[in-house]
This record gives sequence, structure tokens and C-alpha cells, in this order.
Amino acid sequence: MQTQTVNLSPDEMPRQWYNILADIKMNPPLGPDGKPVSPDALAPVFPMNLIEQEVSSERWITIPEDVLNVYSIWRPSPLVRAVALEKALGTPAHIYFKNESVSPPGSHKPNTAVAQVYYNKVFGIKKLTTETGAGQWGAALSFACSQFGLECKIYMVRVSFDQKPYRKAQMQAWGGVCIPSPSNTTNAGRAILEKDPNTPGSLGIAISEAVEAAVSDQSGQTRYSLGSVLNHVMLHQTIIGLEAKLQMQKFGEYPDIVIGCAGGGSNFAGLAFPFVYDKIHGKNIEIYPVEPAACPTLTRAPFVYDHGDTAGYTPLLPMHSLGHAFVPPPVHAGGLRYHGMAPTVSQLVNEGIISARAVTQIDAFKAGTMFARTVGIIPAPESNHAIAQVVEEALKAKMSGEKKVILFNLSGHGLLDLGSYEKYFANELQDYVLEDSVLEDAEKIFEAYPKPQMLKSM
Amino acid sequence: MQTQTVNLSPDEMPRQWYNILADIKMNPPLGPDGKPVSPDALAPVFPMNLIEQEVSSERWITIPEDVLNVYSIWRPSPLVRAVALEKALGTPAHIYFKNESVSPPGSHKPNTAVAQVYYNKVFGIKKLTTETGAGQWGAALSFACSQFGLECKIYMVRVSFDQKPYRKAQMQAWGGVCIPSPSNTTNAGRAILEKDPNTPGSLGIAISEAVEAAVSDQSGQTRYSLGSVLNHVMLHQTIIGLEAKLQMQKFGEYPDIVIGCAGGGSNFAGLAFPFVYDKIHGKNIEIYPVEPAACPTLTRAPFVYDHGDTAGYTPLLPMHSLGHAFVPPPVHAGGLRYHGMAPTVSQLVNEGIISARAVTQIDAFKAGTMFARTVGIIPAPESNHAIAQVVEEALKAKMSGEKKVILFNLSGHGLLDLGSYEKYFANELQDYVLEDSVLEDAEKIFEAYPKPQMLKSM
Repeated sequence: MQTQTVNLSPDEMPRQWYNILADIKMNPPLGPDGKPVSPDALAPVFPMNLIEQEVSSERWITIPEDVLNVYSIWRPSPLVRAVALEKALGTPAHIYFKNESVSPPGSHKPNTAVAQVYYNKVFGIKKLTTETGAGQWGAALSFACSQFGLECKIYMVRVSFDQKPYRKAQMQAWGGVCIPSPSNTTNAGRAILEKDPNTPGSLGIAISEAVEAAVSDQSGQTRYSLGSVLNHVMLHQTIIGLEAKLQMQKFGEYPDIVIGCAGGGSNFAGLAFPFVYDKIHGKNIEIYPVEPAACPTLTRAPFVYDHGDTAGYTPLLPMHSLGHAFVPPPVHAGGLRYHGMAPTVSQLVNEGIISARAVTQIDAFKAGTMFARTVGIIPAPESNHAIAQVVEEALKAKMSGEKKVILFNLSGHGLLDLGSYEKYFANELQDYVLEDSVLEDAEKIFEAYPKPQMLKSM
Repeated sequence: MQTQTVNLSPDEMPRQWYNILADIKMNPPLGPDGKPVSPDALAPVFPMNLIEQEVSSERWITIPEDVLNVYSIWRPSPLVRAVALEKALGTPAHIYFKNESVSPPGSHKPNTAVAQVYYNKVFGIKKLTTETGAGQWGAALSFACSQFGLECKIYMVRVSFDQKPYRKAQMQAWGGVCIPSPSNTTNAGRAILEKDPNTPGSLGIAISEAVEAAVSDQSGQTRYSLGSVLNHVMLHQTIIGLEAKLQMQKFGEYPDIVIGCAGGGSNFAGLAFPFVYDKIHGKNIEIYPVEPAACPTLTRAPFVYDHGDTAGYTPLLPMHSLGHAFVPPPVHAGGLRYHGMAPTVSQLVNEGIISARAVTQIDAFKAGTMFARTVGIIPAPESNHAIAQVVEEALKAKMSGEKKVILFNLSGHGLLDLGSYEKYFANELQDYVLEDSVLEDAEKIFEAYPKPQMLKSM
């Protein structure tokens, strides 16, 4: 058979998420006063039940029945062996992927969107605000809100809003309202537009707007929702890796290498953290987050305290960051163009438990097109970064003759990102690598903040 | 659980297609001389192994191993009970759908694309030409050609080519070449453009161009491929209904009503024909093909002999037809805007075994949006027509208090048709119903041809 698929039955779907905070020590987020933020300080932004989850160090957290219920629309997701890709590469490696593109919004994002909307609903919240870059997250939160009957407002990075007209309609199909960011509906948006009316926008700016819109709603029934970076988001995504472990067992294999693309870190963490657990407990396994060479947070940016958003509304998070004022170059890496990186993922890189890689966008689209023409599925531009690394590892295995078992996360399909494929086919994409001067500029921002490296021995 | 899904294991995938020609008598296609066409006359257009399949009356035809192999990328497809939709409607009806949107191109179309490319390859063909309306079929044939290493050229109806820019890139991702029709690469295209340079195009015109491009290739290694209408296309699609029967058994139910949208007839036939077999053999079951009120082939057009294409290159087929010169109104019914209808489906309507329905596009999008906000999947505009009929039947069941079991075919997702949803949300869609004058004009065309009604007693 060209592809070999293992589906789990509904009964086999995991009933708990894995919380990596039980297994690693983290630097705390800091408030404007330089001291660790109290959970109460976050209460205007997130519901208290999610704040508790954010700081919990329980290893296993039970997935609520109502969340499993909505998960069942598309989960358990398939684990597939990409035999046709192996053949095309002529590699002895076995290449497996977890297919998260099968969800209604088309990516892994609803794994946390559904959970977050559920906890907000239980807490009495009626409306959520959020930001979205490429649109995968905004679509996922709209979908999840429609399932639980909450309102949803999405600030979409303007360059993506203009490039991807279908995304707005997709969010609208589920009842979500999507507006381009920066907008003049918030102070943060107006301030940016005043300085630069033609700004393409950035995730950092859109986060500022969404946070402001949530905390400034006087009814107290609106909260903000973040699609990546935070601990509870990583937590919800671990269902991917937990399913994958069961499925790999059914194939009778265990991965030598685990790969996921990384922007804010959530799809990588979702697949990888259950395997990080194994590595911490003695397994011999390589784990690679893969980022765009044009936005090289883990591979080139320092590990510092920085804001999650441009306006500085969020606490200081200990993470690899290009600086909260960073506006990414116009590469087609979709959701991978965030200035920071999940603190948990950053910490694991810093400790040498996982090891980051960067690929250029042309290598990414080249690998993605090869995947489409062999396995059949057109991957999301984000996923293409993971696939480029998979191809590299598979070719290394071919050179050495070793039978490596490679597992990666197909974070989503690319059907709403076909405009970027069109540019690739027309030879209009540049092989962008971030200039050193950008990193030097970022360093100046960081001088004001403590560096987690200094805190490492705590 | 909100949705209940039955997946079949790969072992349970049917190994044979069901051929309805074993169970109904058909009028033969006629050549230009008014006599039944010989298989040889079709040899420049189709490979002989497919021509043999087109006229076969064997009830069960074995699916080749290489076809099963590619099917395994997404098949068996899920059968889902839409509990959330039932709840929203407050109906005692049980609503099931076969989810054909899970294929890489996003619709049921690859069921026949893969089979046709396989048979062409076995016959030594190197390149296929085809037409596409909304783009589902062109995408499916590109996908299938990439799996078997054939070249693929697609003539896409110009209005859709302009409205749906992502479709071209999707076909290109699999290596297909897509050009807008009418084009000046064919005599048929040039003749149309001369008369009306701004024509929106039609499926009939695009078929003429694709057929001409195939038969005029002097190498003899190019053939034409059709995504609907013909007997062998209906045959390949029956894997849908055969799987659905097994899956309904696992739910412990049997449908009272089977529903599919109908343009050329293939997704309807795919689900329905195995149940038509049951009905012919005594089962009490209602079977409804559903078409757009703006292109009402089965519900309003006569049963006549007509060409499948605008230029008159194809044989005369016995079918319900609005006339081969028909240019559909600009409704967003995607692939349902064909002037004719599969002869097999037409014959079943004529014999009263199945019973056609028509719905307006606003009712279709209204039902589709309700489906998205309950079940979660955004349906293709085509599928929305089926869903509108499902909603009507479910509400009838609510009135009467009867527990009806309704099964329909979700022919595809709407992620590449979100532009039409955007128009619906902006209240820009009209409730178009075809005018009588169009039908009267069509009657004039038909005067030249025999009417199958007269042949019925043969």
C-alpha cells in the first residue's frame, strides 16, 4: 500500500493531557514591576480556571467530557506512513506523520481552541477576542465558539487579511467577526496607524489590540484567547503526541527523530512534549523544532524576558525573542512569523533537550510540493518547514544507510494558502534569511529586561 | 457524543464497484448518423478498456489493486451521524452523511479520477485533457495524474477561473496545467470567442475544447477524461454507497430517504445506486437527486437525445437536458450547472424509481451555514443543495413525529468556494429560478433529435 494509516477508535482517544511543567523548571512571567505576576493580575485577560491551568504542575490533566465531545468531530486524527515519499526519496528511513489537517478548520489549532472556549464558557464568559496571523488560529477559535455558542472577534494581521480573502469568510461561516489589524478600534491600533498608516501589521500588534478589546469591555463577560505560546495552549495540544505514541505502537515502531514546525510553538509542542517526557526519562531520541530562516527565534535570537505583544500589555515572558517590536519580512511562512517562542519550548532548547533547526521558504515549498505529489495532501506553508527538515533527515539516512524512524506533525493543509504556492510556482519567492542588523536592533530592546540565562541555576 | 462516526478498516473497503447497467435498460448513445455509436468510434477520445467498461452490463466489476492503493490515501471515508444538526432542528429524524470531503482534493471526484487515470495508464496513455466547472473535478484529475505520473491539462470555465484563483494553484500543486475556457488554443474555443469575447464560458464549451485537444494530438498518447455523466464514472463512484451500506449496518440502521445533489449526477449516483439496487429488488426507500432551481435539468427539462458538449463533438446521449447551448445563470452552485444529466440518472427519474427535487441557492447556503455551525464542516456549495433537502425532510419528520432515517452525501468541503459564502453573508445572492423562455428556446434545439420517451418500450 502506498500509504499506511492507523486510525484509533473513539474509545482509544486519550482522556488526559500531558503537562510538561511537571517535568521541567521554568522562570516565572514577570509584571511591570519586575516581580513574578500573580494569577490575579491576569484575571481581566483570562478566566481563572485557565489561569490555574497555566500555572499547574500536575502531570496529567483530565480532558472534560464536553471537550472530548467536540474533539470527536475529527479526533482521533490519523497517523500515516508516507510510503510514497520514502520511495520518491529512495531512503531507508520510515517517515510517519500525524495528520492534524483533518479538523474542520484544517489545522491542529482547534485542539486548544475547543478547550479554551469550553473553560471560558464554564466561567460564564460570553465573548472572546483574539488575533490571527495566517488565519488558522482565528478560524479555529471561530469554529470552537460556534460549537459552544460564544461570540468571537478576531484581529487579523493586515497583510494576511489582504492576501487571504477566504479566511474572513471561513471565520464568518462559523459566526466569527474578523477585522484587519492594526485597526482604529483600539488605542494600540490607532497608535501604530498614526506612525505608519501602511504597516503590514504583525502578530504582536494584533495581540495588543485583542487584549485591549477584551479588558476594556465593561461588561466583564469578554476575555482574550491566545492560540500559542502559553503553557495551557501547549498542554491542550499534547493530545497529538499522546495519540501518536499509541499509533506508533500499533505500527510496532518508535521514532528516532521527532519534528515539528515552530512559530509560537504549539503544534511542535503538541507532538513533541510526550516524547520529550520519554527523553527526560532516558529514551534516546532527537527532537527538532523547525522555524523559518527569516524569523529565526530559536536558532538565532537570545533567551530573554520580553513582552508577548508589541504594545507591552502582556507580562514579560522568558523566551527566545527577536524583540516585541519585530515586524517579520514578507515570507509565506504563515503562522511561523511570531517574534517570540513558547517559554516551555525556549526552556527545552536552552537546556539542550531539544535542538532547533531553520529552513528557507524556498526549501520549505519545494519539500511541500514533493509531499503533495507523492502523499497527495497539499500541506500548509507552516508544515512545509517540518517537511523540509524531514527530507533532509531522510536523505542523511540514505547516505548513511541507516533505517531511521522519523515522525513529524502535519500541522495543517494548505488549501487556504494556495496563493503562496502560486507565487512559488511563478518563481516569485525569495530565499530570505534574517539580517544580522535586525538582531542587533533587538538587542537594544532587551537591555531593559532581565535575561533568563542568569536565572537558570535557581 | 455530538457526532458519531463509523470508520471502516482498510480490509473492509469494497473490492468491487456496482454497475447499475445490470439492472436497468438504457437507450444507446447515437452517432451523427442517428445510429447507435460503435465502441470503435469513441477510441480517439477514450482508451478501449474504459469504453468496454462504459458498455459493460456485468453487475460487479473488480477494483484494480493499484486503484485501491491510491484510494487508501483517504478511503474508506467516514459515515457520520449529525447529532448536532438533529438537535438544532429538533427533529426525531436520524441524519447521516457520508463524508467525501476528506479526500486530498476535497470532494468525491477522485473516486473516478483515480480509476480513469489508472485505466489510461494501463492502455499506454501519457496525457489527459479535461474540463472543470467549479474546479473540483480538475483538482481531482490533477491529483490522480500526479499519483500515476501522467500529464494533465484542464480547461476551466472562465467565470469560475476568475472567481476562484486558488483552484489553478491547487491543480498546479499536483502538476496539472489549468487554462481558462473558452481559450484560443482550440477551434471550438476560438469560434465561441469570436461570437462573444466576454462569454463567461460553460461546461459544454470547456468539454468541447478538452475533447478537441485530446483527439487532435497526433502522438495518439492523449485521451480525454470526463468527471461525470458517463456510465463508467457513475460506476467508479458506487464505492461511496457500498461503503455507506456497510457503515449503516454498523449503526444498526437502514435509510428511509437517500439524498444527493445532482449536476452531472456522479456524487448522487455514487451514494444512491447501491440503494437503487435495493429498491429495484423490493426495498421501500425514497431516493432524491437535488438540483439548483436555476439549472433544473431533472425537474423541468425534457428527456431527449442531446450532445454532452456545446460544439456537438460528443455522441447524442439520452438524458434530461436544457440544451447543449445552455449557458447557466451566474448562481453559486459550483459543479451543478451542467446542461445535461447522466443518462442512468435520467432513466431512473423517467421510470419513477427516483424522484428529483430542486432548491434555490439561498436555501442551499442557509442550510449549509446551519450545517457548518452545528456539525462543524463547511460544505461545498454543491453539497448545500443536498443539505437543504435534508433539512426539509427532517422538518417534515418533526411535523409528523416520524423517526425517519435520512442519509445524504457530503460531496465535498467548501474551503475553496468561500467566495460564494462571502457573497451569501453580504446578502448578494439572488434566489434565481430558471425562466420558462429558456426552456422554450431549448425545445427548438431538440426538434432535430429523437426523444427517448418514444424508445422506452424497446
